Amino acid sequence: MKKRKICVVVTARPSYSRIKTALAAIQNHVGLELQLVVAASALLDRYGSAVNYIENDGFKIAAKVFNVLEGENLTAAAKTTGLGILELSTVFDNLKPDIVVTVADRFETMATAISAAYMNIPLAHIQGGEVTGNIDEKVRHAITKLADIHLVSTIKARDRVIKLGEDPAKVIVTGCPSIDIAQEVLNSSALDFDPYKKYGGVGNVHDLSKGYIVVMQHPVTTRYSESRQHIEQTLEAIGEVGLPTLWFWPNVDAGADGTSKGIRAFREFQSEKAVNIHFFKNMEPIDFLKLLKNSLGIVGNSSVGVRECSFLGIPAVNIGNRQVGREQGGNVIDVDYNKEAIKMAIKQQIEHGHYSSNTTYGEGNSGKQIADTLCVVELGIEKILSY
Amino acid sequence: MKKRKICVVVTARPSYSRIKTALAAIQNHVGLELQLVVAASALLDRYGSAVNYIENDGFKIAAKVFNVLEGENLTAAAKTTGLGILELSTVFDNLKPDIVVTVADRFETMATAISAAYMNIPLAHIQGGEVTGNIDEKVRHAITKLADIHLVSTIKARDRVIKLGEDPAKVIVTGCPSIDIAQEVLNSSALDFDPYKKYGGVGNVHDLSKGYIVVMQHPVTTRYSESRQHIEQTLEAIGEVGLPTLWFWPNVDAGADGTSKGIRAFREFQSEKAVNIHFFKNMEPIDFLKLLKNSLGIVGNSSVGVRECSFLGIPAVNIGNRQVGREQGGNVIDVDYNKEAIKMAIKQQIEHGHYSSNTTYGEGNSGKQIADTLCVVELGIEKILSY
Amino acid sequence: MKKRKICVVVTARPSYSRIKTALAAIQNHVGLELQLVVAASALLDRYGSAVNYIENDGFKIAAKVFNVLEGENLTAAAKTTGLGILELSTVFDNLKPDIVVTVADRFETMATAISAAYMNIPLAHIQGGEVTGNIDEKVRHAITKLADIHLVSTIKARDRVIKLGEDPAKVIVTGCPSIDIAQEVLNSSALDFDPYKKYGGVGNVHDLSKGYIVVMQHPVTTRYSESRQHIEQTLEAIGEVGLPTLWFWPNVDAGADGTSKGIRAFREFQSEKAVNIHFFKNMEPIDFLKLLKNSLGIVGNSSVGVRECSFLGIPAVNIGNRQVGREQGGNVIDVDYNKEAIKMAIKQQIEHGHYSSNTTYGEGNSGKQIADTLCVVELGIEKILSY
Amino acid sequence: MKKRKICVVVTARPSYSRIKTALAAIQNHVGLELQLVVAASALLDRYGSAVNYIENDGFKIAAKVFNVLEGENLTAAAKTTGLGILELSTVFDNLKPDIVVTVADRFETMATAISAAYMNIPLAHIQGGEVTGNIDEKVRHAITKLADIHLVSTIKARDRVIKLGEDPAKVIVTGCPSIDIAQEVLNSSALDFDPYKKYGGVGNVHDLSKGYIVVMQHPVTTRYSESRQHIEQTLEAIGEVGLPTLWFWPNVDAGADGTSKGIRAFREFQSEKAVNIHFFKNMEPIDFLKLLKNSLGIVGNSSVGVRECSFLGIPAVNIGNRQVGREQGGNVIDVDYNKEAIKMAIKQQIEHGHYSSNTTYGEGNSGKQIADTLCVVELGIEKILSY
Repeated sequence: MKKRKICVVVTARPSYSRIKTALAAIQNHVGLELQLVVAASALLDRYGSAVNYIENDGFKIAAKVFNVLEGENLTAAAKTTGLGILELSTVFDNLKPDIVVTVADRFETMATAISAAYMNIPLAHIQGGEVTGNIDEKVRHAITKLADIHLVSTIKARDRVIKLGEDPAKVIVTGCPSIDIAQEVLNSSALDFDPYKKYGGVGNVHDLSKGYIVVMQHPVTTRYSESRQHIEQTLEAIGEVGLPTLWFWPNVDAGADGTSKGIRAFREFQSEKAVNIHFFKNMEPIDFLKLLKNSLGIVGNSSVGVRECSFLGIPAVNIGNRQVGREQGGNVIDVDYNKEAIKMAIKQQIEHGHYSSNTTYGEGNSGKQIADTLCVVELGIEKILSY
Repeated sequence: MKKRKICVVVTARPSYSRIKTALAAIQNHVGLELQLVVAASALLDRYGSAVNYIENDGFKIAAKVFNVLEGENLTAAAKTTGLGILELSTVFDNLKPDIVVTVADRFETMATAISAAYMNIPLAHIQGGEVTGNIDEKVRHAITKLADIHLVSTIKARDRVIKLGEDPAKVIVTGCPSIDIAQEVLNSSALDFDPYKKYGGVGNVHDLSKGYIVVMQHPVTTRYSESRQHIEQTLEAIGEVGLPTLWFWPNVDAGADGTSKGIRAFREFQSEKAVNIHFFKNMEPIDFLKLLKNSLGIVGNSSVGVRECSFLGIPAVNIGNRQVGREQGGNVIDVDYNKEAIKMAIKQQIEHGHYSSNTTYGEGNSGKQIADTLCVVELGIEKILSY
Repeated sequence: MKKRKICVVVTARPSYSRIKTALAAIQNHVGLELQLVVAASALLDRYGSAVNYIENDGFKIAAKVFNVLEGENLTAAAKTTGLGILELSTVFDNLKPDIVVTVADRFETMATAISAAYMNIPLAHIQGGEVTGNIDEKVRHAITKLADIHLVSTIKARDRVIKLGEDPAKVIVTGCPSIDIAQEVLNSSALDFDPYKKYGGVGNVHDLSKGYIVVMQHPVTTRYSESRQHIEQTLEAIGEVGLPTLWFWPNVDAGADGTSKGIRAFREFQSEKAVNIHFFKNMEPIDFLKLLKNSLGIVGNSSVGVRECSFLGIPAVNIGNRQVGREQGGNVIDVDYNKEAIKMAIKQQIEHGHYSSNTTYGEGNSGKQIADTLCVVELGIEKILSY
Repeated sequence: MKKRKICVVVTARPSYSRIKTALAAIQNHVGLELQLVVAASALLDRYGSAVNYIENDGFKIAAKVFNVLEGENLTAAAKTTGLGILELSTVFDNLKPDIVVTVADRFETMATAISAAYMNIPLAHIQGGEVTGNIDEKVRHAITKLADIHLVSTIKARDRVIKLGEDPAKVIVTGCPSIDIAQEVLNSSALDFDPYKKYGGVGNVHDLSKGYIVVMQHPVTTRYSESRQHIEQTLEAIGEVGLPTLWFWPNVDAGADGTSKGIRAFREFQSEKAVNIHFFKNMEPIDFLKLLKNSLGIVGNSSVGVRECSFLGIPAVNIGNRQVGREQGGNVIDVDYNKEAIKMAIKQQIEHGHYSSNTTYGEGNSGKQIADTLCVVELGIEKILSY
């Protein structure tokens, strides 16, 4: 039997973490051949060079696509997507995949979806049917309408995709591959590496054995001008809480410069308020999860707080509307962009301590389920709304 | 009060016909300022230079965007869209519209939708919620998920857009502006121009006073390789029916060359079978409707057969799956790509004669309703799926 | 020893003819590895699908790049070049060639030159240092200033490239590979194929044994609006001369539509004047040369008339300024875009008959010389004007 | 008389300084209309947002073009240029200028040149005919071959452009507009602003009244991987010299990240060696010249050291090969990328003190000369090499 060629396009560091076990399962599957395309910010040093981790993890890259436009406005996000379509359509033309896989809902994943759909290549979408604030919300559901196969994380997500008019036979709950990695650290007892030594970063070094906080806060694109103010509220809250903190640099996004500038300015001019914070650019997914597993909790607006941390039982303080509507597993306190509210929620979570594990987003075998599904799912590109 | 700037992007000849009365209503509206962008095949001679009609009709063009990639495969459609995003995002950056309007479901309209959505400009979508075969089906519903305001043609379309998760307050039935033009010819009695003299074209000239047929058949992109065979079935059927026939050249589309080549080859090598056919590139919308109003019927797969012709009561023979799922008004016989079936349906329709007028797609005031809605609709770009 | 990777970018039908023996010599060279990229109009059916000939000739294609923008103005030529840069830089990034080879002076070859030069890949330019009218003149010399290695056709061309400031050590007279193919037919006696049967085309079929004319006339981009008038002068002259004529369709170029339309209109409306003309889209290079070798002469503005025909001794009537400044070998009469002048020159050339062979453009071993040079030439990308 | 429309494309901060007085002279000229396009890094905050200075200086911007691709390799420079062509050709299509002006030799200025040349718009090139190391060298002379009008800075530059085959009637010595600004500060006596207060920046604040050094060092693209090592030699030399130093951040360029990272790492980890350095992102051209005029000298590889400083008589230490071949006025000591050599040259220059003014690059009225020439120069786009 001829192997199905599965072309997966990875465009960013967090998307890689989210798809990694599926990549491995596809690569090792007897009926599948992996064609891995690495594009956009996944190639850029400023955003953590996911490409290096990908290569270190032993994946062979079929094509690299540089398409991130530099700029301080939303125009750059649109242009990055346009350029992505130009390039990815050439890539697909050369690779001739049987299925293209696009991950989640970052703006540039739309380029993958359009190139595949317009070229009559069956499109599989991972993590459709979820609900969040932000432009991601529009992107995610628009991709659902372009996609032919939907590999969703939760039962509720499946319901939504079907309500959006998709054929129930093509909407499969596989869970989220990010939970597969979390599964590996679920029962680990202590941090088995020194984050300062292994990953460098900037800022003071602290004794992490007495407890520490992890922060990851991305700009929210539809509120461009406010991103600097938002980040300052969190910076001040964390500074005043005073616990050792490991802070991770944000993704590329419109608004990114507001956020980045806020952080830089804080370090430069208010460094006395930031003595407890150490800043990192990136970390291998598995190490990042170990770090979370051993932390007091996570603060910010990353989906990790809602997804992986619900499985791991780690307290999360979720700021602002970026995760609005995303299913939660009981470990999250939602707060506004407000220093006092953030501080209070952190204290409340530390008092509570770790939660019990929740399997809403998967049970740890999603990568394999995705690969198995891609091998057997009926392929087709024609669909029609039935209501 | 400051006028709202309404940027409408017209990308093709048929889209112009479909939006023309709305453009006029926006231009003349006291609360609105029209920013008209003409792009893609609407600028190209090979596809009828809609731009000339637009300028002759007195519309001022704010920007022209050449973005059609030449090619004989679907890659060109994807790249045309990618290039459209690159260019339209610069255009929107300069024009700074309050609302961007995208029309219907041609593949390149996705460029308009993505540029506007990613740049946080409220997006109005005209003719969402309809159902047809083809890549258009995916494009249309994906645009619905990117759009903030939905100006739909029928009650059933409104129901579908709401089922797709859109806020009912933002889904307004305005009818289709193409019906406004049809309204003007509904009560006309006879053809008041000579199509051969006014529009040239190639092929023999016939006496139209005894009845004639109109043909318009586009390639169906998801069946690229078959387009030549499809068009030959229709050519032979029309040749054998033998009635005077006015045949309109197809749009730009992947597959277009299969269709175009089929027509050219038929004319070149089987010209004895085509003596009853005269070929036209283009016609002013109003003249085209007059031609339909006075015809025996329309043959092919244009949506005109289903929409304008249901309002005008003109018999239509609809071939293949391009209009599958589109609401019909009783004037259509659907057939497969089969010479004999096409011939039989033509005969049946000619025997039946004209139908009574049907207002499913509007009552003739859609342009005004669209303009009025754009003036008062609440603007916003954040939405979230509520189910 | 590691083989040098030589990436040759072919962008059009005539460029392929001009580089074919060099491609074969590179492919068969023990010290070289050929990376063949086919781009632009070489991929398009409308312009003769050079790609099919390339594959039939047994060359393996490393990448295909669709980048021709459709349009009726010069903007499309600029955009085609811009898009070419975007795509070719990705291609070079993946192929990592040791040398990139760009052929001659068509506008889109600038994309190859810029991508290579900006990426610090040594650039070899074939056929620099020649002089002609047209935008080609600017393109050719600009590429010379971007190139590191110059493989020129004539001694005079070498002089010019050196005067342009290039290092004499890097300017090598290899002759033109097109002469290599001409060499193969130089001593053939009669036409060994039937062009009508082998290549189809449109128009009447004639007895070629009594003598025939070949026509090839391209639009001249810097005189865009005049291209239709130009072509009509030639069409009428050829019609009045009345000899059997084999006419070849022009390249893609701004202005192409003026030329193409002129031809189409002439065939449609003045077909009685064109009874002696048969139109072809394309022909294998070797067959085309055989056709020339056995013809009464060539008419138009193709460089073939000046180059290959001087070697073959075929009379040429060269119309207009497209070949102004190109070295001639005695077989050419230059005329203006004027029906009477064209007719008179044709008659004069037919009276004269064939000329003796001239080796200004090479002696028939250029392909091998190019390959040998690419294998041993010192590689470097830094240069500085020494005057 | 109809005013000639002069479209000037400014793509970077240093280009703006270099063209500013010409922009003013064009804007105020009775026979000219200025169409100012701001593109590429001139729009980006990371590179000093030249656009803000442009607007503050009262210039009206006709179009903004975001086209900088983010990336850590040379591919991004190529793609930025390709994207520039796509966008600028649309801009020129809309503005319909009589002349397009491109400035100097940055890689992305090629986009301006190609778009204009391919669209048959007369192209004026400012600062052709100079000689330097680097990819700029190729770009500059290639643009000369695409340009129709050459407005050069020096007599020697004019000689070179003519030797490159250009028509002497179209090569005019106007001097360099950057000298016009220098002219304004030539006779100023003391620094009339506090750079720390007016421009912020990062690092310690020093008493400048006792003398200070200015540093500006750009990466050299053809030596990508070495840029970090290069910058470190300069950082250490300056640190050891110990004098108060005002250091300006480099332009966008391939290699930029090596340079930037070197600077950031030095500040972060070796801050004790950098106590005498204060870093600035940008400065208004006039203030920058005042700063130079009152400094002990300039160190680095900026052309300012060779051009403006020769006019102002300021000692310059020029590092590496970036300015190789550029005409010098006696104020420059050239050194290699070597800490000790840099230190020694700095000391030597400080001992020498200021030089007398040299007018090789202009006498202070270049902007006016450029505007006057653009008003009267004969326009044409056809040229042909005469040797």
